[in-house]
Amino acid sequence: VVAFSSGNHAQGVALAARLVGTSAVICMPTDAPRLKLDATRGYGAEVVLYDRQKDDREAIARRIAGESGRVLVPPFDDYAIMAGQGTAALELLEDVPDLDVLLAPVGGGGLMAGCSTVARALSAKTMVIGVEADTANDTYLSFRKGERVTIPPPPTIADGIRLTTPGALTFPILKENLTDMALVSDEEILDAVRRLAVEAHLVVEPTGAIPLAAVLAGRLPIPPGSKVGVILSGGNIDPALLASVLTSR
Amino acid sequence: VVAFSSGNHAQGVALAARLVGTSAVICMPTDAPRLKLDATRGYGAEVVLYDRQKDDREAIARRIAGESGRVLVPPFDDYAIMAGQGTAALELLEDVPDLDVLLAPVGGGGLMAGCSTVARALSAKTMVIGVEADTANDTYLSFRKGERVTIPPPPTIADGIRLTTPGALTFPILKENLTDMALVSDEEILDAVRRLAVEAHLVVEPTGAIPLAAVLAGRLPIPPGSKVGVILSGGNIDPALLASVLTSR
Repeated sequence: VVAFSSGNHAQGVALAARLVGTSAVICMPTDAPRLKLDATRGYGAEVVLYDRQKDDREAIARRIAGESGRVLVPPFDDYAIMAGQGTAALELLEDVPDLDVLLAPVGGGGLMAGCSTVARALSAKTMVIGVEADTANDTYLSFRKGERVTIPPPPTIADGIRLTTPGALTFPILKENLTDMALVSDEEILDAVRRLAVEAHLVVEPTGAIPLAAVLAGRLPIPPGSKVGVILSGGNIDPALLASVLTSR
Repeated sequence: VVAFSSGNHAQGVALAARLVGTSAVICMPTDAPRLKLDATRGYGAEVVLYDRQKDDREAIARRIAGESGRVLVPPFDDYAIMAGQGTAALELLEDVPDLDVLLAPVGGGGLMAGCSTVARALSAKTMVIGVEADTANDTYLSFRKGERVTIPPPPTIADGIRLTTPGALTFPILKENLTDMALVSDEEILDAVRRLAVEAHLVVEPTGAIPLAAVLAGRLPIPPGSKVGVILSGGNIDPALLASVLTSR
């Protein structure tokens, strides 16, 4: 198989390939966290690096797939991937059926497309809100405009959502399902990372802490007493970054 | 109520007192982590500090109880407390009934007295091993000798088990139930803290990481393929200590 990803999808595909006894080539950005690069290689995958500012990672992956006969496993713009990622909301709603609000980070939109579809199917009353970093606001702008908008490569600390445009397949689903989109600053994201570690004893990477950041920063019109479900979508934070966040106050 | 504790029991009693609408006075050592002192005060308790090298905390707590009419809630040497702490093993064995090995840290011995009683009752095949820091080896030495041994106040980083002797009520239970005792160094404990954060994405305090440290350091005769249950008994690590552990390699 071949895949392109900033990190967590890369690890998932690498591990899945090993489990079924095949090999994986993963295209990852040169500025992906070292922890994610190491982990992907640790699962036995070959990593091909690309420049996030210049290269078209999807084109590189398609070329490798074409040349080697490998199957391309896209990170978000694929209905099977969306369905798989949506099982996070399925598990959450099984545990808490009467959720008032469901929040998830939005990068390419695969996680939120799957999760919002599950929420719409199982719980009509649940507000579903996607959250992005304020410099990676491609889906926020697209949602407001009603069509896909492209932004420059964003500099956010949240490496999992450094996308420039929503997916062609995911965006129509988000547009249909989402109650709203919200934005948070990198500072708010890192504050949520710190509070998750100190108060909830969970190590969560910046991208995964985005939805909680929106709650803690008061960016959402959530009535007191609401049951709020927050999907913490990854824990692969560089130890040095986590260390600096922990000593930041 | 009144209680004495290095930290986690303190927080539990403080929160419980608030929930039932009463007040709590907690005796805590002057060198308890600030996080634990702040959290205990944050739950509304009054904190009375004592010197771990000189003072008899139990005598202080009994005096306060006598003077104020408060009920003393001891941290480990009490059958109700042991039973409550043993519910950790109850939940673990409900999830994994065929556990080969059960590990927990041993300070005063309340957690392990409760957990080992549960294991003995539900799963005859499960080896139950208590783990201490090598400088806080009062229960290790007592277990070897068959009677309670007293050591000087230990300097271990694991602030939750800085006890000088096993409990009068807990030790006979440990002596009866435990398969063995094991020891780990502070360095091995901090390595387990680091690996829990980086690989398992869990923030665990030194005391809570002691049992996993014994596994990772190869201190236990565990056959390959065994199902090993490890009780991670607390997450209240000072952020600065966690930061230094994360940047230690």
